[in-house]
Amino acid sequence: MPSHQTRLRVRYAETDQMGVVYYANYLVWMEVGRVELVRSLGFPYKDLEQSEGLYLSVVDANCRYIYPARYDQEVVVETRIAKAGSRMVEFGYRISSAEPERLLAEGSTRHIWLNREWKPTSLPERYRKALGAA
Amino acid sequence: MPSHQTRLRVRYAETDQMGVVYYANYLVWMEVGRVELVRSLGFPYKDLEQSEGLYLSVVDANCRYIYPARYDQEVVVETRIAKAGSRMVEFGYRISSAEPERLLAEGSTRHIWLNREWKPTSLPERYRKALGAA
Amino acid sequence: MPSHQTRLRVRYAETDQMGVVYYANYLVWMEVGRVELVRSLGFPYKDLEQSEGLYLSVVDANCRYIYPARYDQEVVVETRIAKAGSRMVEFGYRISSAEPERLLAEGSTRHIWLNREWKPTSLPERYRKALGAA
Amino acid sequence: MPSHQTRLRVRYAETDQMGVVYYANYLVWMEVGRVELVRSLGFPYKDLEQSEGLYLSVVDANCRYIYPARYDQEVVVETRIAKAGSRMVEFGYRISSAEPERLLAEGSTRHIWLNREWKPTSLPERYRKALGAA
Repeated sequence: MPSHQTRLRVRYAETDQMGVVYYANYLVWMEVGRVELVRSLGFPYKDLEQSEGLYLSVVDANCRYIYPARYDQEVVVETRIAKAGSRMVEFGYRISSAEPERLLAEGSTRHIWLNREWKPTSLPERYRKALGAA
Repeated sequence: MPSHQTRLRVRYAETDQMGVVYYANYLVWMEVGRVELVRSLGFPYKDLEQSEGLYLSVVDANCRYIYPARYDQEVVVETRIAKAGSRMVEFGYRISSAEPERLLAEGSTRHIWLNREWKPTSLPERYRKALGAA
Repeated sequence: MPSHQTRLRVRYAETDQMGVVYYANYLVWMEVGRVELVRSLGFPYKDLEQSEGLYLSVVDANCRYIYPARYDQEVVVETRIAKAGSRMVEFGYRISSAEPERLLAEGSTRHIWLNREWKPTSLPERYRKALGAA
Repeated sequence: MPSHQTRLRVRYAETDQMGVVYYANYLVWMEVGRVELVRSLGFPYKDLEQSEGLYLSVVDANCRYIYPARYDQEVVVETRIAKAGSRMVEFGYRISSAEPERLLAEGSTRHIWLNREWKPTSLPERYRKALGAA
């Protein structure tokens, strides 16, 4: 199944007064990870929305926090497609610091495809193949 | 000119590792302040967008930071309409902590009205009056 | 086990271009919910950090998204303590819109208590009782 | 005076239901800009905080919004030091989209240096020179 790595640097805005990254921001990084994975497969998510009227709507999300991310660290978000069907897709994430190399968090998100009327819909065949859907 | 006070409590998410509220979040509180001011005048901003197709687009924003807001404090956002015309509106803000009572920040934002096509437009007369526009 | 309801209003800042609340913000609302639950038990979380040097560190979080929250809605966050021991606590959340009354999301977070040196620690007895810990 | 360019990509999290970037997020991008400018001068801001106990505390911020930034755009943040003394520093920012090349916003922030006791302090000479302070 397709996977992709992307890097980002922790922003001051993302920290909280505990001196580490606020927990909800890992879900923002997961968004960055899956968008870059989809881009690497040849179809920017933006185009899916604009040209195809396809929206990736989240059904559930979970995150296991292993070690706190800190301000200014380089963070690697490794995203893979864990499961893909015609109507849903599940992403898995491993979030690590680059130096020292250490696993910070693991998580997953599940999504369904919606059309412009917000109804569940099937992903057209050409995209499905790229995602590795059965 | 109309003015309004609204209260909110500082969220953990809004702090940063300096142990105080991250500076961009004051602009979020200004949004809360102007939305509640407009609601107090009898027309929720949400309805302006949905029913009238009117969007309040920001032209500039500024904030002077006087004393840092801290986690869990009750914060009072005092919003007033500083200037209002048919096509623009300017809000002024005073942001204070409730206890101890202390001025934390002052600021202002200027906006123009846009229609659904994103073109500058005039606010219908009935709203203009409520805003105190000349 | 203790539970608590708190209300908040969806901010413009919390929406995204899909026209609904961005998914990471539900975790911010969960933070608001558990802080208000702990406050209702008689000990503000802020005091735990400041006076006791106790930090509630998140171990995992998950959220199931059922129906999208929209701008300006009043949202009810119902938080309960699902499990509590001397060293950990688990919160459960039900997030609903007030009008129409509809379940928007369900989730949970698990936490451990850390001391000022970031070592896992036990919650003092008086707090444990209040949380309903065995 | 020193200046620096950094690039970032607009996140879904940064948009709002108007379909453009929420206005407070430009201040987050300014933070990214000034941090990268300071890094390019040879002293990461993180080290100033950790090793020197120096904190860059914001005194005021302003932003003029010229053209809306959109989801997934590459954005260039051009940051320069507009003024620097022993106790204060002012940054100026130009925020543009890369393609099409278009100015999106301009702004500035003023800061003072604080020590670990949160008292205004002077920046040590070696840093002052790097910032181009008189």
